[in-house]
Amino acid sequence: MGGSDVMTSRLVALRSAISASNIAGWYIGREDLYQGEEVPAGDERLAYISGFTGSAGFGVVMADHAALFSDGRYTLQMVTQTDHANWVSHTLPDASFEAWLGGLDLPAGWVLGIDSRLVTLDGYRKIEAAVTDADGILVGFDHNLIDSVWPDRPVLPPAQPWPMPDAITGRSLTEKLASLDDYLATQNCDAILITRVDAVNWLINQRGHDLEFTPVTLCFAFYGRGTGLCLLGDVPRLTPLQTAGFTIKPLDDLAVLLVALGDGQLMFEPSSLPYCLFRVIEAASARQVEKSCQVTVMKAQKTAAELCGFHAAHQRDGVAMVEFLCWLDRHHKAGISECAIGEKLLAFRQQQDGFVAPSFATIAGSGPNGAIVHYRAIAGKDRMLQDDDVLLLDSGAHYRDGTTDITRTIAIGSPPEAAAFAYSHVLKAHINLATALFPAGTTGQQLDVLARAPLWAAQMDFAHGTGHGVGHVLSVHEGPAGISKRGMVPLQAGMILSNEPGFYQTGAWGIRLENLVAVTPVVAGSDAMTQDSAFFCFETITLCPFDRRLILPDLLNARERQWVNDYHQKVYDRLSASCSATAKTWLRAATEPI
Amino acid sequence: MGGSDVMTSRLVALRSAISASNIAGWYIGREDLYQGEEVPAGDERLAYISGFTGSAGFGVVMADHAALFSDGRYTLQMVTQTDHANWVSHTLPDASFEAWLGGLDLPAGWVLGIDSRLVTLDGYRKIEAAVTDADGILVGFDHNLIDSVWPDRPVLPPAQPWPMPDAITGRSLTEKLASLDDYLATQNCDAILITRVDAVNWLINQRGHDLEFTPVTLCFAFYGRGTGLCLLGDVPRLTPLQTAGFTIKPLDDLAVLLVALGDGQLMFEPSSLPYCLFRVIEAASARQVEKSCQVTVMKAQKTAAELCGFHAAHQRDGVAMVEFLCWLDRHHKAGISECAIGEKLLAFRQQQDGFVAPSFATIAGSGPNGAIVHYRAIAGKDRMLQDDDVLLLDSGAHYRDGTTDITRTIAIGSPPEAAAFAYSHVLKAHINLATALFPAGTTGQQLDVLARAPLWAAQMDFAHGTGHGVGHVLSVHEGPAGISKRGMVPLQAGMILSNEPGFYQTGAWGIRLENLVAVTPVVAGSDAMTQDSAFFCFETITLCPFDRRLILPDLLNARERQWVNDYHQKVYDRLSASCSATAKTWLRAATEPI
Repeated sequence: MGGSDVMTSRLVALRSAISASNIAGWYIGREDLYQGEEVPAGDERLAYISGFTGSAGFGVVMADHAALFSDGRYTLQMVTQTDHANWVSHTLPDASFEAWLGGLDLPAGWVLGIDSRLVTLDGYRKIEAAVTDADGILVGFDHNLIDSVWPDRPVLPPAQPWPMPDAITGRSLTEKLASLDDYLATQNCDAILITRVDAVNWLINQRGHDLEFTPVTLCFAFYGRGTGLCLLGDVPRLTPLQTAGFTIKPLDDLAVLLVALGDGQLMFEPSSLPYCLFRVIEAASARQVEKSCQVTVMKAQKTAAELCGFHAAHQRDGVAMVEFLCWLDRHHKAGISECAIGEKLLAFRQQQDGFVAPSFATIAGSGPNGAIVHYRAIAGKDRMLQDDDVLLLDSGAHYRDGTTDITRTIAIGSPPEAAAFAYSHVLKAHINLATALFPAGTTGQQLDVLARAPLWAAQMDFAHGTGHGVGHVLSVHEGPAGISKRGMVPLQAGMILSNEPGFYQTGAWGIRLENLVAVTPVVAGSDAMTQDSAFFCFETITLCPFDRRLILPDLLNARERQWVNDYHQKVYDRLSASCSATAKTWLRAATEPI
Repeated sequence: MGGSDVMTSRLVALRSAISASNIAGWYIGREDLYQGEEVPAGDERLAYISGFTGSAGFGVVMADHAALFSDGRYTLQMVTQTDHANWVSHTLPDASFEAWLGGLDLPAGWVLGIDSRLVTLDGYRKIEAAVTDADGILVGFDHNLIDSVWPDRPVLPPAQPWPMPDAITGRSLTEKLASLDDYLATQNCDAILITRVDAVNWLINQRGHDLEFTPVTLCFAFYGRGTGLCLLGDVPRLTPLQTAGFTIKPLDDLAVLLVALGDGQLMFEPSSLPYCLFRVIEAASARQVEKSCQVTVMKAQKTAAELCGFHAAHQRDGVAMVEFLCWLDRHHKAGISECAIGEKLLAFRQQQDGFVAPSFATIAGSGPNGAIVHYRAIAGKDRMLQDDDVLLLDSGAHYRDGTTDITRTIAIGSPPEAAAFAYSHVLKAHINLATALFPAGTTGQQLDVLARAPLWAAQMDFAHGTGHGVGHVLSVHEGPAGISKRGMVPLQAGMILSNEPGFYQTGAWGIRLENLVAVTPVVAGSDAMTQDSAFFCFETITLCPFDRRLILPDLLNARERQWVNDYHQKVYDRLSASCSATAKTWLRAATEPI
């Protein structure tokens, strides 16, 4: 991020801007206007001012204080990336913004400024409550003090949108709008403001290249039951979009759309609505309905065409994985860095038809780095593979027809027996979830335990969720469902989720085994004792062998061994014809029965 | 409950009292002052006025309306027990009190009366919100209009308290008060009002005979950090208590105790505090702290002595069960009614040392009655055992040293194969939970799925919770922990819970298999991969064979068969020496390996 002097001068400039604005401090979130997991370079304001590049957190700068807040994943990173002479780091939830403010002994009526474009309505309410508790006033600005002191702030290049044919999406824009219209009718709403970028891109059946790992064009949308769909955003940037079925207007035109709505009912989502837009809504006469984004709910249940695309994409991705794993087995003795692993794997994926982009930054964690759950190798600072290492490799890609996310853990030479013991238990956990049947209405919170109980049996556990929703050529992490302690949404047919239990031996190695699964209705069979309620199962769609060298067959029961052998046979049958001769031979051996 | 004429005249009398009080209607809950699951006969006001004897529900009587509300378990019973000319029954949550009130078109300012002694603070707030929404006013009375029209209302006999020696409780009153005092210090509280009867009886190490199935003396308690413990209740009734360590005062003296407390902090529990006492608190100057009952939390973690007593009680209870099951096998062809089954089983229990009382009303559901989850046989209206029946038998007892709650499902002759299929799956579910290991912090909500997944695998499920806490010679259902979708409390060492999955084939038979289990720390073994966090397991404490005739061994895996055989061997080893010769022979055969 630049040297200490550079960072200090940035902070000095910001403090001047704060002082010139007659406020006591400035709040810097990590979010951009679109609140996605990924933000463009020009929106990395927290990193610009503090040096901290974590994926979550916020900072507050005042005349005598500069404080950084993030969670336990980033405790160390906050300290290593910031200048301690300027910044004090705090780990949430042990520390809290409220308690920190309370300890500052601020004069009544002090003002904290925030960019009202970069905070959601929910976020604003929470920050405001904390500031009010500390006798202060939160003031939403329509400009950003960081931007005023960031001379060469990167600008987004023109949008490069591309269409998703109806054959791949399975639903036309017209059909999607008809469903949305029906839903709004049931809710007595006249319009909806859609403030989730992936939901808008899904709705219009187009994708883009605005972000590195999320193939979207950044924009919001307004749909009025009488007036149709209107995209809201940077109009010059959005001009390349194919506009059949909607119009494009600047974000400022929301006010005009709301005039047309009159006192109609407007639905919006407080957890994604930028506060600046809430102000526009407040100024209008529309009646407000706060609700989770219905388009997010709609897109979570994949169409038959999307599911078909997921399968096809996973077949090609599986071939790339097999080619890579074969290559790795043959070359790892030569000395390979973690970054080189990511690059080689990407090269194999790029050879596959329809490859678009990686779906997230590859995690290649060798040896002790595998035990760092959110590890990201940095070129030059990464580790070289060593003999008898365990390699944790979590990666994925977007193809034109589907998205992948796969983790395999690989033996380099002869890892310790303890790693095979853990691998076998993680595999049992993975299988226990993969083979579950469950009734309609079951939540991810309930299913989470199925991927833990086999680990608990050996007094093991993992400190992350078991599975997340996966978008169709959209965000690799999508709502509303998930398999974790927080997964309160019932699973529905057509949802794609990850199944990724793990175990991490700090300082030694990490194990994680991840396949994607599709929620699939079960046709009542002869064993079914109830006919009155539907049951679901998971169909595993990822195709790639598990490392037999790390499986201790005696730790698996007959049913689990059968599952592994059946899965490996399927992997061979589906991939071998598309593999190179060398990889095919490798795959034959890698999928031998255990 | 009496004929239609009698019931009508009761309603007429109540309406006169309502009219004389210048109010529009009267609210009749099912609760008494002490809010326990069981109420004395003189508190069965809802049954007196409506005829409905269900364990949950409420009624509202107005000039032109008499409405009864209960949940889906009682939809049919509400209709069969009430006079339709007078009463309209509503099933919650499909119907709601709020919606019903809204539909009455009442004049603004109408008044609903309620006995402020028989409703908790939480309950009052909820009812008041509904009445306010319907433009009405809820008025808490200090007398009861039903009592004024109930001439021979039963009166509680004098209390018959009995002591629990420290050797059985494992903690003296002094030690318990010291713990409570420490807790109050951490919460900056000066006093606590304890409004749970079982918590008070546990605290003073005494029990009583005020209720049929819950061995308590009805009273509340006040503990002041400076002033010590004071029981609050009906002083003449409470006089037989051994009063070493506390004083006894009338409930009205709460006001005096609060004067002494001044503006100190008083902790109380809104979900059990009678509204009449909240009024007393409101009138005093104490600062209020609303919190769940800490004594309930303390008593849930059984002492080593209590656990020892549980084991001893289960050994004797197991002998009674075995004697009964042996007798049933030899006599069922003679024609036995469901009520006779309950009586015979009770007779065997009464022969055991230290027997106090049944811990709840026995559920003996034969054939289709077994599929009615809350079935209760009524003498004269019950069913005779038939050849090839399935009998579901859920029963339990209090002994001087512990409490039992056991469900066995028994083959009478040769039940259908489908019942054995279901039985085997319920057994798999039972075993899956019984053998679980889980880390500290795990809630019953998480574990609930372990007793469902093996049933889900055959597309089966059950519509009740999996397990409840069990008191030590107190309520057979106690908080705060439970194994169900609502079980948000982490399980702690020493908690006793039931493990009772089931499956119910409506109109045919019901299966439930229930043992009690104790949450027990696991000593990290050679398989343990983590040393930094504690794990728990369940120790099964119930001793009684499962019916081998209903187990299809092929449906059990090797681990499950081994569990059954090991359990049966333990049952034989622990019980056989105390059985009659006939029962010992029966037990030998009933515990043969499968």
